[in-house]
Amino acid sequence: MSLSRAEAEALDAADPLARFRAAFDLPEGLIYLDGNSLGPPPKTALARLSETAASEWGRDLIRSWNTNGWMEAPLRVGAKIAGLIGAQPHEVAVADSTSVNLFKLAAGALSLRPGRTTLLAQAGEFPTDLHILQGLGELLGDRARLKIVPEAELLAAIDVDVAAVVLSHVHYRSSRRWDMAAVTAAAQAKGALMLWDLSHSAGAVVVDLNGAMADLAVGCGYKHLNGGPGAPAFLFVAERHLAAIRQPLTGWLGHAEPFAFEDAHRPAPDIRALTTGTPPILSLTALEAGIDLHLAVDRAAAEAKGGALSDLFIALVEARCPDLRLASPRRAQDRGLHVSLTHADGYAIVQALIDRGVVGDFRAPDVLRFGVSPLFTRFVEVWDAVDILADVLDSRAFDRDAYRQRAAVT
Amino acid sequence: MSLSRAEAEALDAADPLARFRAAFDLPEGLIYLDGNSLGPPPKTALARLSETAASEWGRDLIRSWNTNGWMEAPLRVGAKIAGLIGAQPHEVAVADSTSVNLFKLAAGALSLRPGRTTLLAQAGEFPTDLHILQGLGELLGDRARLKIVPEAELLAAIDVDVAAVVLSHVHYRSSRRWDMAAVTAAAQAKGALMLWDLSHSAGAVVVDLNGAMADLAVGCGYKHLNGGPGAPAFLFVAERHLAAIRQPLTGWLGHAEPFAFEDAHRPAPDIRALTTGTPPILSLTALEAGIDLHLAVDRAAAEAKGGALSDLFIALVEARCPDLRLASPRRAQDRGLHVSLTHADGYAIVQALIDRGVVGDFRAPDVLRFGVSPLFTRFVEVWDAVDILADVLDSRAFDRDAYRQRAAVT
Repeated sequence: MSLSRAEAEALDAADPLARFRAAFDLPEGLIYLDGNSLGPPPKTALARLSETAASEWGRDLIRSWNTNGWMEAPLRVGAKIAGLIGAQPHEVAVADSTSVNLFKLAAGALSLRPGRTTLLAQAGEFPTDLHILQGLGELLGDRARLKIVPEAELLAAIDVDVAAVVLSHVHYRSSRRWDMAAVTAAAQAKGALMLWDLSHSAGAVVVDLNGAMADLAVGCGYKHLNGGPGAPAFLFVAERHLAAIRQPLTGWLGHAEPFAFEDAHRPAPDIRALTTGTPPILSLTALEAGIDLHLAVDRAAAEAKGGALSDLFIALVEARCPDLRLASPRRAQDRGLHVSLTHADGYAIVQALIDRGVVGDFRAPDVLRFGVSPLFTRFVEVWDAVDILADVLDSRAFDRDAYRQRAAVT
Repeated sequence: MSLSRAEAEALDAADPLARFRAAFDLPEGLIYLDGNSLGPPPKTALARLSETAASEWGRDLIRSWNTNGWMEAPLRVGAKIAGLIGAQPHEVAVADSTSVNLFKLAAGALSLRPGRTTLLAQAGEFPTDLHILQGLGELLGDRARLKIVPEAELLAAIDVDVAAVVLSHVHYRSSRRWDMAAVTAAAQAKGALMLWDLSHSAGAVVVDLNGAMADLAVGCGYKHLNGGPGAPAFLFVAERHLAAIRQPLTGWLGHAEPFAFEDAHRPAPDIRALTTGTPPILSLTALEAGIDLHLAVDRAAAEAKGGALSDLFIALVEARCPDLRLASPRRAQDRGLHVSLTHADGYAIVQALIDRGVVGDFRAPDVLRFGVSPLFTRFVEVWDAVDILADVLDSRAFDRDAYRQRAAVT
């Protein structure tokens, strides 16, 4: 495939989602292919953040908890996220970080499957998932243990001691997208619960938790949901588990009556029982703006455009950059919105690209990641990015000590 | 004591901290006596928040984790908070909510005191503290239990099974301030650790964790530290415990090498091991502005002014409002910065005051709370607030159905 730049421009001209680009104010001359790590701000997020800070915090002060909807924000924004992930509004809450939420839901899974002790995950899973499960296992001694198996052995490793299978819907490195319904069914066939990490799929690809009969899920607000750096995360508990699940981070916000100021904790009868402490309202405001923008986008059209963008990226790379190897699934429906390539000089190449205005990222030891967005990535940007990438490789522009030595922190 | 309004104005004129009032942009005509619940924004917080959102998030995007100091923010801001609480810079980190941090440190205390199972707290402690300890106890079964005793029996209840005594330095309701050194010594005499909750004292009164030989502490960013609604919280671990403490929320940020992307968690060798997930940068930016402001204030002068403001409040109330009863310690050195009064119609009185431009808050069943701040409260505001309070009581302006029925959510 040797699409011309003019043909890429024609794809943009015909793109039904092209208008969403104007919702962002991306820096001139920058091709941003790292929305999978930190989504850029919608213009509305900046405006609302100023309003919340100056008017709600500064003018209304403490009264804002009631009059400006701060108290309801974790469930209000959660209900909106539900619309992006195939959940019911009362099954989702915004809370804490992805890591903390995973701790709560993994412990919650053990509470729903008494007698079972195994939390099953794949090797090479996003590290914080494994680390949190490890921490829970060490805390609980012989009542819980993390079992890590190679990806290819995951399904076969589900046995009757597994309380929950914890799995990223889209893998942070390879971009592999699992068949949510099939894996969920495999887990449930052995009586295990399925706990999905949606960090790289929420807002990126079609997610249908209830369609897949998923039990539990967590996800990140600051990647494809454009919620701002370190945005609060979210969690999902299927309605059928809400009454029985117990989680250990029983803070005041999850109490049945937070303002009763009782010594004894009584969990709220709904998803609020999964929340813990006072939510960071400023960060939550930015997240809500990101979610509202995503809700305005047709999900099927976004899925189609995301696949087309990343398909184009792969086709152009394979046509013009023979030294790069594809490390992601070839079919769009098996991928998320980022594409991973490998090269022994990956780190230096990513650095050289940044200096040429193309921002992707690097994951040790040799992975270059490039993420597209159906909301703000243009087809011509994909064309230009690969054009620059090919030039960096052909000219060996990456082969400078300065690029090789920079610290890698993305 | 019957200080005149002119005399109150004279106190303001002579106040060495009066200039800090200009650091805030409080609404005209409002007397804000609820900074103990939500501190108002320093002007710098609003400016920095806009800068962080528009320039760092919007322009520098993912690169901000390195170039704008986002990665270091939890420890950088923690080190600044250390300067306000008598800690060393490497003993404090910003992370999560107060509730989540308390879970981490209570579990951490159990890890430091193997064989001990009791977490000791007083009845009527701030609810989230009790609730979190209850949740940890229920998770750990016979390896941990929360023991709640009346305030008067707390010290006597410390026995050789107590892993940690958990106690608010300043009580959220009564404003009682404990002698940090004496209580810490009593706990340590029985081999227990002392875990202080500084939510109502950090930024409010002199706190000297190391002077008191405290072991562990948590605290809130959005009350007296003016960090913004739901600002990230902080935690303190005394240097002597940093190597041995283990906490279960082992997220990626607390890993020895967060970007090594290893399957196995290896805790960082320092206070970073107490952090968990990606920090909410926008909220953290506002918090840092609040902390920077507090660092510019002489702590001894602030302690003296805070005591003088609350002493004046009590004296005027007792002179002019005979129906109110003081529910806080009488001596300033035994109190925090809020004063609690009781009245059977407390809720309606607080509502009537809000309509007259005086914002305090109510805690069921009968407590009216009024907090002062040495940074932004003027002596004449205390005088005016009590003048209005006396008028509301004398005229029975609170005695209207509308005030009696409003939902109480502060």
